Amino acid sequence: MRIESIKELAEIVRGADNITVLTHVHPDGDTIGAGFALCRCLRMMGKKANVVNSDEFPKKFGYIFNDYREEEFEEKFVISVDIADTKLLGDRLSVYADRIDLCIDHHGSNKMFAKANYVDGGCCAVCLIIYDLMHELGIEADPLTADCLYTGIATDTGCFMYENTSPEAHRAAAVLIERGAHAAPINREMFQIKSRGRILSEQKLISGMKFADSGEIALICITNDIIDSYGVDRADLDGFAGIPLSVAGVRIGITLKQQAEDPGVFKASIRTVDADAAGIAAIFGGGGHSRAAGCTVPGEAGEVSEKLIAAAEKFL
Amino acid sequence: MRIESIKELAEIVRGADNITVLTHVHPDGDTIGAGFALCRCLRMMGKKANVVNSDEFPKKFGYIFNDYREEEFEEKFVISVDIADTKLLGDRLSVYADRIDLCIDHHGSNKMFAKANYVDGGCCAVCLIIYDLMHELGIEADPLTADCLYTGIATDTGCFMYENTSPEAHRAAAVLIERGAHAAPINREMFQIKSRGRILSEQKLISGMKFADSGEIALICITNDIIDSYGVDRADLDGFAGIPLSVAGVRIGITLKQQAEDPGVFKASIRTVDADAAGIAAIFGGGGHSRAAGCTVPGEAGEVSEKLIAAAEKFL
Repeated sequence: MRIESIKELAEIVRGADNITVLTHVHPDGDTIGAGFALCRCLRMMGKKANVVNSDEFPKKFGYIFNDYREEEFEEKFVISVDIADTKLLGDRLSVYADRIDLCIDHHGSNKMFAKANYVDGGCCAVCLIIYDLMHELGIEADPLTADCLYTGIATDTGCFMYENTSPEAHRAAAVLIERGAHAAPINREMFQIKSRGRILSEQKLISGMKFADSGEIALICITNDIIDSYGVDRADLDGFAGIPLSVAGVRIGITLKQQAEDPGVFKASIRTVDADAAGIAAIFGGGGHSRAAGCTVPGEAGEVSEKLIAAAEKFL
Repeated sequence: MRIESIKELAEIVRGADNITVLTHVHPDGDTIGAGFALCRCLRMMGKKANVVNSDEFPKKFGYIFNDYREEEFEEKFVISVDIADTKLLGDRLSVYADRIDLCIDHHGSNKMFAKANYVDGGCCAVCLIIYDLMHELGIEADPLTADCLYTGIATDTGCFMYENTSPEAHRAAAVLIERGAHAAPINREMFQIKSRGRILSEQKLISGMKFADSGEIALICITNDIIDSYGVDRADLDGFAGIPLSVAGVRIGITLKQQAEDPGVFKASIRTVDADAAGIAAIFGGGGHSRAAGCTVPGEAGEVSEKLIAAAEKFL
């Protein structure tokens, strides 16, 4: 079933209790922010709720989960946030794949795997959907909930930089700052601060950047070797995806990440100025948004790079 | 005379005609955006107005001024925007120093040099003041005016990243996007794209960064030598000021720029996480905001670096 309105979504949430909120593997700011904000909202409504993930939540989001305590209850309802496909549940949560009651997502490519699915592909962040939902439910965000929601909106819009930044995203940010969101320290942690290892590894990647099509396509490849020798935190790797697009003239930027557990496989992040990123990712069975998408490609570094560049060329 | 309200400011603007709008030397996004937005607003009101500067406007702001045409009229009223001190008029505009009718600014350190002065030291950008003024005047921004105002608000808040980003800044951004501001391409031009020369020179500067006080103070020094050998556009140098603060643990970041016309003088940009940047700048006769300030220091690179670091240490 597809849910068409926030009103209908709020009705379903009102009727649920003893709720587990699922977040996606390799958790980012939007899934973590949305998961914890929704959990806090549900608890404020007097319901029992927990947030779970197959991985550890990265330390840099500690301000969101440091004071979180799991509750004990008999689970009766399962909600997924920011999950487009049950593959993204990861190992530990894969048992939930066929029993998710409600999916709340903002990926146009969502597989509609839950009993009820609220998918707004035009919305920049699931946190913005949770913000609207809380408004509909009449639950006011406290400062920590405002931090959660601000985090997802800021991280998924590149701090209000990308094309997906809607007037609604700015208006929500205004209200969340008024409700006590610690916007500047969050932004500093998410966008500004880099460890020395990361700065040095970025230098290494930039000097090894590959260009194709007169510089309209740029690609960097983060190998396990680079990660290990510079001591880069894998949780920081998401931030590297913006590097190729930062070079003047580049319209399609590709960032390959060698997988730690399987060095014969690369995850590709595709970022574009005006080309169809999701279209490029789809060639390799991946998906995402029109300007930011991802896929997984087996092979060795040189071969995978060539395949990605060849695919990207068709979308220039 | 100090003007206390936007209403009073609007009254003065309503009564003026044949207006020259002054912007500051080394023009940045806020002075250019505010100058051209105000000029467009005045023209929409049926008044005659021009924008002037002592320097050339940097090419990257071309979308703001490419279609601008100077009007001919007998000047009767002079307004300065984003100018805290008549020293910032530069050579060509210095003749205006003692005959400015109206000063519109957001620097707490403003010298109140005009006949009427509207100074809101708590406002993140002069463009936000012009936005409020236009609202008070009942003049609606067209897409190009929205671009101007968005540019100043975005550049002076580091794309809504810094502590000075108010709820009002976000609300104005929402409205400006609705009025047709091209937010994403502007952000890409202002924050994301870097020339290869700039990327390489940043690498050089980062690897030569000086640290003091267990890494709480960081300093980079941009010499004419670096600018020349990497072909860096001097108009891009403002963007370098954020580099020292990007290193984890740094609380005071100092960026020195050797002056092209006078290599024995360095301009210092001071950015802080929590220390008083304007206080540090004031030691050298400079000024600015609490988290971003600047000053000019004569001497050779090593000596100037040591002086700045010694001054910064008092503010940790």
